[in-house]
Amino acid sequence: MGTIYLDHNATTRTHPEVVREMVRVLEQDFGSPQSLHALGRHARDTVERARETLACHLRARPAETFFTSGGTEADNLALVGAALAGEAAGRRHLITSAVEHHAVLVPLEWLRGRGFELSVLPVDGHGRVDPDDVRRALRPDTALVSVMAANNEVGTIEPVAEIGRLMREHAPHAVFHCDAVQALGKLPIDVQAWNVDLLAVAAHKVYGPKGVGALYVRKGTRLVPLVRGGHHEKGRRAGTENVAGIAGFGKAIELYEAGQLGSPTRVGALRDRLERRLGEAVGDVRVNGHPRERLHNTLNLSFRGVEGESVIVDLDLEGVEVSGGSACTSAEIEVSHVLAAMALDRRDMQAAVRFSLGWENTEAEVDRVVELCRVIVAKLRGLKRRPG
Amino acid sequence: MGTIYLDHNATTRTHPEVVREMVRVLEQDFGSPQSLHALGRHARDTVERARETLACHLRARPAETFFTSGGTEADNLALVGAALAGEAAGRRHLITSAVEHHAVLVPLEWLRGRGFELSVLPVDGHGRVDPDDVRRALRPDTALVSVMAANNEVGTIEPVAEIGRLMREHAPHAVFHCDAVQALGKLPIDVQAWNVDLLAVAAHKVYGPKGVGALYVRKGTRLVPLVRGGHHEKGRRAGTENVAGIAGFGKAIELYEAGQLGSPTRVGALRDRLERRLGEAVGDVRVNGHPRERLHNTLNLSFRGVEGESVIVDLDLEGVEVSGGSACTSAEIEVSHVLAAMALDRRDMQAAVRFSLGWENTEAEVDRVVELCRVIVAKLRGLKRRPG
Repeated sequence: MGTIYLDHNATTRTHPEVVREMVRVLEQDFGSPQSLHALGRHARDTVERARETLACHLRARPAETFFTSGGTEADNLALVGAALAGEAAGRRHLITSAVEHHAVLVPLEWLRGRGFELSVLPVDGHGRVDPDDVRRALRPDTALVSVMAANNEVGTIEPVAEIGRLMREHAPHAVFHCDAVQALGKLPIDVQAWNVDLLAVAAHKVYGPKGVGALYVRKGTRLVPLVRGGHHEKGRRAGTENVAGIAGFGKAIELYEAGQLGSPTRVGALRDRLERRLGEAVGDVRVNGHPRERLHNTLNLSFRGVEGESVIVDLDLEGVEVSGGSACTSAEIEVSHVLAAMALDRRDMQAAVRFSLGWENTEAEVDRVVELCRVIVAKLRGLKRRPG
Repeated sequence: MGTIYLDHNATTRTHPEVVREMVRVLEQDFGSPQSLHALGRHARDTVERARETLACHLRARPAETFFTSGGTEADNLALVGAALAGEAAGRRHLITSAVEHHAVLVPLEWLRGRGFELSVLPVDGHGRVDPDDVRRALRPDTALVSVMAANNEVGTIEPVAEIGRLMREHAPHAVFHCDAVQALGKLPIDVQAWNVDLLAVAAHKVYGPKGVGALYVRKGTRLVPLVRGGHHEKGRRAGTENVAGIAGFGKAIELYEAGQLGSPTRVGALRDRLERRLGEAVGDVRVNGHPRERLHNTLNLSFRGVEGESVIVDLDLEGVEVSGGSACTSAEIEVSHVLAAMALDRRDMQAAVRFSLGWENTEAEVDRVVELCRVIVAKLRGLKRRPG
């Protein structure tokens, strides 16, 4: 049996049709979209087709959809851009949640160091933000609220539409940003129903290439650019467009819309099978995240009494790829800020392993992973019990 | 006869071997370099191999070479990053030249609007900065000097090594940034000999993919990051790495080092042939840029008495792709700031066309372009002479 990949929340295998589309662009549409000549026009058309596909998927307009180099850049552009624009209008208060991705928390911390005031909202034991907490935190000088659509580590889905609604009512002056990088392709995204002003997504979480993302910017939202130069992306983001990557992103969304990236029902059933069987076969586990309001593909689970990292390493030796905390920092072992915000005790945090499934996974793979976990955890628990 | 592409300073056709390497990575090495497991390690190895190749080419160390989403982002990171770091040390004076790319000028203008003082140095009629002007502009509070290696529009090579030497002597406190986006693959770059602290390059100018660039950062250079989040690129640039694009960049540099991207002698001979024959066949032309200190592939030429844009459009109809001013703004017709800084008269500026050659071009293509230009310019000049 080959490698079993259960780390789809970190990144996904580029879909063969996405690769094919990228090769077509690299070979034929290699012009710069800024050029006047035919090759330039073809490249421009390619970019605009992808923009329409993505915008439609987000329930946005193409003119409100801007390509970036990835989710992290999109988040940075949204946060730093809206904060600096807010500052120009005399607003220096920012609100976010304790379970955001580092792509959100780190720029916000940087802004705090530059004179902004930052309110970090707590979450409950399932990792959910309480919309009432957002409402209470809103102030006349609030420039920005940033709450993610779904958490990358535990899969908890945040009440974004509720927050959007109450912000329209109580703080129409504040900009609402949503990091939807982990939600794309897993939840239906609707920038209108959610009442968001800014929303960040990335291609490589949905079987597209790494190095491409996008930011939805509601018409009229003031945003100071992050990368400056030419008139690309209507001045929102300078630099020659990653035409092949953008085309690949568009193709991935097309595949998703066509139902070719697996049904949530099927992947959800696989995740539920994994969760149920791990509980039965391994025993003494804790499922982290919301029991229902959770991404259908995500299972964050603490194998009590062992180090999650040891499980990950042993699974890797058997060709099974999973993660610990956030994949983006997992090369450095540190306790997850998400699990800490959910008030897990330290041992449960250290015992956590994240399984995140995708359309390629099968029942046979799930059953093999359960059996491997059973053996590995039993061995590790046995080692711990021995003296010395 | 098919399309003749003479717009290599705007962008280049991705080399087939680069495409092949990218496909390999997209299909096999699709892990996130931040992941602990085997796929993550393979992706990390791929990125580090490319880093070593590029660093070696720049005469830098891998630990000083950081990947970005392109040349524009690399320039923005260098300029905004070094300026903000300088500001923290009480230095708010910036120096640049009048012929820099918009990726340099626009962020510097933004910094000027945020309290920095900006000295913009003039150039001579060939587009060259005088190192003495740099020396005279240096002040104790100079945070940064930014001068490009070679100009994208006219190909003029700037005296970067001289500037680097005098900065080491007269202003060791100031950071020296060099936009080498257009020089990469056309000039031997040597960050040691040039005495630069920062140097920006992009893959798509050298037969690599769009959406990838790099910034050389000399050890010890203080730089505030532009994109914040995880620990990627040692904290210099957050976001999941564009592994396939980075691998493609590395492959392009390998091909260059192996002499597979055309010899400067051969491409230079083609450019000289184009320049000579256009002068003979069309007549009354002005070559813009330095007669000798010029990129071997670049010919910026004013067809006197006609609009450069009309020549470009007519050539496009015949399948020949060339540019006017900087390709990055050519979708909006405006007078080139580079030609204006070189003090061309307005008619010569409007008559300018940029031919930029690459390794795929042939003598037959050059001769065909000369013949087309002869016919097109004669027609346009004839139209102008007619009444009404």
